[in-house]
Amino acid sequence: MFTIAKTEATRGIWSSTRNMPDAPGRGMVTVDVIAAGICGTDYHIYNWDAWSSGRIKTPMVIGHEFVGIISAIGEDVTGYHVGERVSAECHIACGECHFCRTGNAHICENTSIIGVDRPGAFAEQVEIPASNLWKVPDAIPDTHAAVFDPVGNAMHMVSTAKVTAKHVLIVGGGPIGLFAAAIAKAHGARSVTVQEPNQARAAIAHSLDLDLVVNPLLPDSTSKILDLTDGHGPEVVLEVSGNGRALNEALAIAAPGATVALLGIPGGPVELDLGAKVVMKGISLLGVTGRRMYETWYQVEAFMLKNPDLIDKVITHVLPATEFERGFELMDEGACGKIVLDFQQIEHRLSA
Amino acid sequence: MFTIAKTEATRGIWSSTRNMPDAPGRGMVTVDVIAAGICGTDYHIYNWDAWSSGRIKTPMVIGHEFVGIISAIGEDVTGYHVGERVSAECHIACGECHFCRTGNAHICENTSIIGVDRPGAFAEQVEIPASNLWKVPDAIPDTHAAVFDPVGNAMHMVSTAKVTAKHVLIVGGGPIGLFAAAIAKAHGARSVTVQEPNQARAAIAHSLDLDLVVNPLLPDSTSKILDLTDGHGPEVVLEVSGNGRALNEALAIAAPGATVALLGIPGGPVELDLGAKVVMKGISLLGVTGRRMYETWYQVEAFMLKNPDLIDKVITHVLPATEFERGFELMDEGACGKIVLDFQQIEHRLSA
Amino acid sequence: MFTIAKTEATRGIWSSTRNMPDAPGRGMVTVDVIAAGICGTDYHIYNWDAWSSGRIKTPMVIGHEFVGIISAIGEDVTGYHVGERVSAECHIACGECHFCRTGNAHICENTSIIGVDRPGAFAEQVEIPASNLWKVPDAIPDTHAAVFDPVGNAMHMVSTAKVTAKHVLIVGGGPIGLFAAAIAKAHGARSVTVQEPNQARAAIAHSLDLDLVVNPLLPDSTSKILDLTDGHGPEVVLEVSGNGRALNEALAIAAPGATVALLGIPGGPVELDLGAKVVMKGISLLGVTGRRMYETWYQVEAFMLKNPDLIDKVITHVLPATEFERGFELMDEGACGKIVLDFQQIEHRLSA
Amino acid sequence: MFTIAKTEATRGIWSSTRNMPDAPGRGMVTVDVIAAGICGTDYHIYNWDAWSSGRIKTPMVIGHEFVGIISAIGEDVTGYHVGERVSAECHIACGECHFCRTGNAHICENTSIIGVDRPGAFAEQVEIPASNLWKVPDAIPDTHAAVFDPVGNAMHMVSTAKVTAKHVLIVGGGPIGLFAAAIAKAHGARSVTVQEPNQARAAIAHSLDLDLVVNPLLPDSTSKILDLTDGHGPEVVLEVSGNGRALNEALAIAAPGATVALLGIPGGPVELDLGAKVVMKGISLLGVTGRRMYETWYQVEAFMLKNPDLIDKVITHVLPATEFERGFELMDEGACGKIVLDFQQIEHRLSA
Repeated sequence: MFTIAKTEATRGIWSSTRNMPDAPGRGMVTVDVIAAGICGTDYHIYNWDAWSSGRIKTPMVIGHEFVGIISAIGEDVTGYHVGERVSAECHIACGECHFCRTGNAHICENTSIIGVDRPGAFAEQVEIPASNLWKVPDAIPDTHAAVFDPVGNAMHMVSTAKVTAKHVLIVGGGPIGLFAAAIAKAHGARSVTVQEPNQARAAIAHSLDLDLVVNPLLPDSTSKILDLTDGHGPEVVLEVSGNGRALNEALAIAAPGATVALLGIPGGPVELDLGAKVVMKGISLLGVTGRRMYETWYQVEAFMLKNPDLIDKVITHVLPATEFERGFELMDEGACGKIVLDFQQIEHRLSA
Repeated sequence: MFTIAKTEATRGIWSSTRNMPDAPGRGMVTVDVIAAGICGTDYHIYNWDAWSSGRIKTPMVIGHEFVGIISAIGEDVTGYHVGERVSAECHIACGECHFCRTGNAHICENTSIIGVDRPGAFAEQVEIPASNLWKVPDAIPDTHAAVFDPVGNAMHMVSTAKVTAKHVLIVGGGPIGLFAAAIAKAHGARSVTVQEPNQARAAIAHSLDLDLVVNPLLPDSTSKILDLTDGHGPEVVLEVSGNGRALNEALAIAAPGATVALLGIPGGPVELDLGAKVVMKGISLLGVTGRRMYETWYQVEAFMLKNPDLIDKVITHVLPATEFERGFELMDEGACGKIVLDFQQIEHRLSA
Repeated sequence: MFTIAKTEATRGIWSSTRNMPDAPGRGMVTVDVIAAGICGTDYHIYNWDAWSSGRIKTPMVIGHEFVGIISAIGEDVTGYHVGERVSAECHIACGECHFCRTGNAHICENTSIIGVDRPGAFAEQVEIPASNLWKVPDAIPDTHAAVFDPVGNAMHMVSTAKVTAKHVLIVGGGPIGLFAAAIAKAHGARSVTVQEPNQARAAIAHSLDLDLVVNPLLPDSTSKILDLTDGHGPEVVLEVSGNGRALNEALAIAAPGATVALLGIPGGPVELDLGAKVVMKGISLLGVTGRRMYETWYQVEAFMLKNPDLIDKVITHVLPATEFERGFELMDEGACGKIVLDFQQIEHRLSA
Repeated sequence: MFTIAKTEATRGIWSSTRNMPDAPGRGMVTVDVIAAGICGTDYHIYNWDAWSSGRIKTPMVIGHEFVGIISAIGEDVTGYHVGERVSAECHIACGECHFCRTGNAHICENTSIIGVDRPGAFAEQVEIPASNLWKVPDAIPDTHAAVFDPVGNAMHMVSTAKVTAKHVLIVGGGPIGLFAAAIAKAHGARSVTVQEPNQARAAIAHSLDLDLVVNPLLPDSTSKILDLTDGHGPEVVLEVSGNGRALNEALAIAAPGATVALLGIPGGPVELDLGAKVVMKGISLLGVTGRRMYETWYQVEAFMLKNPDLIDKVITHVLPATEFERGFELMDEGACGKIVLDFQQIEHRLSA
C-alpha cells in the first residue's frame, strides 16, 4: 500500500510502499485512513532533528493524527464494528504501570506512539488497539475528525490552565496555538491574545476574531497586551512556541498568580528568573503533554460539534496525500495553519 | 524602647532605641512583643544583600514573625481587646486592588511588610492593623506562636502541593524546609525525605522521624530516593533551597506528573531543561509566596495544636532578645533550626 | 426622596418617601440610583411569605440589584470618586468572622443585606460601604449593570458546577435560570437544556438559541433530554426552581457522577432518594448562595462584556420606576424575564 | 472447595461446596484466598433485605474483600506471576463505557461485582481479572490486606471530602466509619469526632485516640460537638450511618460551607431541609461509592504502611472461616468492628 515514510536517516520524507497489515491481532483493529493531519512532530522527523534522529528507527511510516473507517477487527474486540468511522489516540499506553492505573495514562512509562515507534497513519491502512479508538459523530466532517489529536493537545492545555473569564495570552500561532485560541474563546475567556511574528499565521489568528493579535518583533506588543488587560497582564499564558525568550517576556508581563501552561518544547535549556518572576509572583508553570485519556477526547468532541467554523479557519490546506511534499514545504515556509492530507484518492486504494 | 534595627547601610544589625509608638491610629493596635523569630529575610537584611540594600530604607526596625499582647487599640477596631495574645500577618495588603478583592491578598500589588517597609517586631512594641491579627489559642505556647509566619510559608507550600498519600522530597533543610517536612508528615504523606548537606540541619530532620534524610553531596542520595519511591521518584518536590542545581537534580528524578512547589529564591536566573523535564513529564512548577490570608493561618493553628512536639524540634534556640547577635552568628554557621528571640526580659520593658 | 418600600406588614409594595441619606459615614458612599432590577427576593417580600414576614421590619425600602453614580463619599474611602458609575454587592459582610477571613464572605455569619435588613436601592439614593462597590466598565449599558447581582448568582452556580464540555440541564427558566443558560453556553457547555413549564419563559429560553427547551409537563421531556445526552443524562444540573419534584426527576436522569448545583429555595423539606440517586450514582449536590466576593463579580464583568446580546434577551422589560406595580404584576403572571426599573426619570430627583 | 454461600433465598448464610474454578480464562487469574473481611454488604445479603433479594441469584458464593496468593494465571496476563500476594478491586468495570473511558470506572454502567453478581471470595479460591489485582507490599500483614476494599471506601470518602486542617464529624462508627476516623486523623484533620450510639463501637472509636466520641442518644452530643468546633460546627461531615435523622441533625450543626460526604445507604427516601440547611448555608453533599480505580488503592496502601496500629484497632475479630456464623452473629449484636475470616486453615484446602 501507499505510505509516507522516513526511509532514510537524513532530512526528508518519502513515499513508500508497505504490505497491507495482516488481519488485526487480538484487541486490534485495522482502519482504512480517510485523512490525516501533518503534525509538528512529523515536521521534526522530516527535518531529522536531534530528537527524531535519536528515537526513530528507519524505515518508519509516519503520521499519527487521522480519521478512517474500521475495515477489520481482531479477536476480543467489543463495542466496534467494521464500517464505523473513528479517530484514535496515537499514544498506546501500557495500561499496567503506576501512571496508567492512577488515571495518568498520558504519562505512561511504557508509551509507544504510532508514526514514531510503530507504523503510522500516513498510509492506506493503519493498525491500532481498539482501546485507542474514538468514534466520530456524524456531524463532524472528515477534515476535522483528522485533527482530534492536535486539537486534543490544545484542549488539554486549555483545560489544565482554566481560561474561563480570564485574560489569555497564547505565545505562538502555529496550529496548536491557533486551536488553543479558538478553544479559549469558546470556553469564555475574558480576552484572547495571540502573539506570533509570522504574518501568515497572524492572519489566521485575525480570522478567528480574537481580542488581539500581536507581533512580538514590534515594540508595542507588550503595551498592547497590558492595555487590554487593565495593566495587570494576562492571567493565563499558553506557551506553544518553545521559545525561551518569548517565555521570559511572557513571565515578565503575566499577572501575579497567573497560570502558565507549557506545551512548546524548547530546543535546549531555558534560563528563567524563577525568584522574581515565578516564586514572588505566585505563578504556576504547568507542563502539558499528550491528551487525558479519554476525557480530553470527549471535550474535543464537544468543542468540534459547537465550533466547526473556528476549526475550518485553522485548517488552511487539504492536500491529496500524494502531494505530501507540498505540505512539508508549506511548513518550511510557515505559510499555513494545519495541513490535512486526503488519503481517499490514492490510486489502487486498499490493494497492496 | 529597645529595638533591633538596620541602622547603617552595611552588613550587620544593631540594637537601637526608638520611641514607643503613639496611640494606635484608626483600625490599628499596639502589641507588646513577647517573642519573635529570626527569619531568613532578616538574615538577608543583616547581610545587606542586593535585594535588601535595594529595598530597605535605614534606619529600619526589622523582624516580622512574632507573638505578643495587645496593649492599645485604635478607633474603629472591633473584635479585639487589650490583653489578648495575638500573632499577626506581616504582609499589610491594601484590600482594594484586583488581587485583594479576588481572594489573593498574598500577591497584593500594594503590599507593605513590617520589618521591611515599616517598623518591625524586633522591638518592645509593634503597631499593626487589627485586620492582620490572629488570636492565639491558649494551648499554643509563646515560642510556637512566634513562628506562625514561617510555619505559614511552609503550610502554604505544602497545601498548594497536596502531599497526602504522596512521596514527598523536600530540597533544603532550613527552618521552612523542616517545618514543611513536619507538616507533610502530619498531613499523611506516603513518605517524607529531606535533602540537606548541612549536617546540623540534617540532624534536626532526623529528629523528626522522617522516612529519609539524604546528603546531596554524597553519591548515593539519588539512588536512596529512588529506592524509597519504588523507582518512580518523588511525586511532590518542595524546593526551599533556592539552589538551581538542586532544583534541576530534583526535576530529573521527580515522577512524571509530579508537583514541584517553589519557595526558595534563587540568587539569579536558573537554567532549566523545560522540554524533557517539565513539559514531556507533565510536571507542574508552582511558585509559592507568603500565606493565604487567612486560610493558611487557620491551617497552621490546626497543625500547631496537634503537633507541638514537631515544632519543638525545629525551634532549636530561644535566646534573650538582647543576645540577637548570637542568633545571627548561629545562622552564619548554619548550626541551628529556627531561632526565637525572647522580648519579655528586656529591662525597662514598656518604658520608652 | 421617592422609594419603593414595604410600608405595611401585608401583601403588597408601595411608593413612599424617605429623607435623602445624610452625608455618608466613614467608609460609606451615597449612590444615585440609575436603574435597579426586581429580584425574586423582592417578589417574596411583596407576597409577604413566611420567610420575608419573619425577617423584614417595616417600613423597609426594598431593592438590592442596581447601578448608579457615586454622589457623595465618606471619610476614609479611597479608590472611588464622585461621578463614577458603580454597581454593588448587596450582602454587607462583617469582614471579621471566620468565614470572611478564610475567603468565604458569601456565607458570613453576620451578613446584613440592603433592601432586606437596611434601606435598599429602590430609591433615588442608596448608601452602601465603599468596599461593596464594583466599578462598571463603560462598555456595559445601565440595564445590564443593574443586574450584576442576579447574573452573579447564576455565575456563582455555573462556576461552581463547572459546565465546560458538559451536558447541562437547567431546571427552571426564571431570570436566574435564563442567565445561567446564557453563561453555560458562553462557557462552552456541550449542550444546554432549559426545563420550564411557563411558555412565556420557555420562549425567552428559545431566543437564547440553546440546544433544547423542554416542558416538564409534557410526557416526552425526559426522553428528549436523554436523546440529546446520548442516553446518559445531563452531567450538570442547575436547579433554580426550588421545586422538589423537579429535583427528584432531574436526579433520576442525571448521569452517574453528575454535579447538581442547588440555588432554588424549596418552600419546605424535600424528600430525596439519596441511596439510589445520590450515593450509588456518585452524584454531588452543591448548595450555592450569593456571590463569591469579588471573584464572581470579575467573572460577571467578563461575561457581560462578551455577551450583551444574551443579556438583552433575558431582560424583557425596562419600566419607569414609578410603574413598579406593573413589574410585580408581570411577575405574578410569569410573563417576563428580568424586569429593570429606571430611576432616572423620577420627578424632583435628588431633592428630598 | 469450601465456600460460604447464599444457597437459599431466605435469611441466613451457609457453608457450601463448589468445584474449584477451571484454569483461569484469558486475562484472568485464580487466587487462593488467605483471608477475607465480612462487609456490610455481606450482612445485607445474609439478612436478605430488599436490595439483596432483588439482585442476588442463588446459589451465590459471597465475599468480596480479600487477600490471597495467585495460584494460576490465564492467557495474556502480564505483570503478575504465581505466588504473588494480592488483594483485588471487587467491582469489575467494563473498561469501555463512557464512564470507564473518562476516569470514572467506579461508576461504570456495566459493573459486575464478585460475591454479588458472580462467585465471591468467601471460598478457597476466587477467579478475577488480572486488571483488578493490587499487589500487596510485604510490610502489610494479611489481616490488613484483607480489608483494602472497605478501607478504600473510607479513603474515597475522606479524600473526596478533603479533611486536612478541618473539624471532621463522622456519623456512624461501624467499620467504615472507624476506618474513616483513622484516615482523617492520619491526614491531619483539625479534630475528629465519631458519633455512634452503640457502646461497643464507641469503645473502638475511643481506642483510636480521637478528639471526641459522642452518643447521639444523649442530650449533650450536639453541644459537645459545637464546643469542640468553636461554635461553628464541623466543616466536614462523613455520613456512613445511612440514618436520615442523623443526617438532618448533622446538617443542622454543620458549619456554613461544609462538605458532607454521603456513603451510608438510607433504607428509603430521606426528607431534607434543602433550603435552609444546604442552599443558604452553601453546603455540598457528595455521594461517594466504591473506590477510585486505582488511585484510591494507592492511597490506602500509603495509609496502611504508616498506620498499622490504627487498623489493628478497627479489626476486632479474626475468625477461622469455618466459624463464619459467629461473625454474622457478632454483626447482629453490633459487638464488633471489622471481622476477618481466615481461610488458611480450611481442611483439604486446594482440593475440590
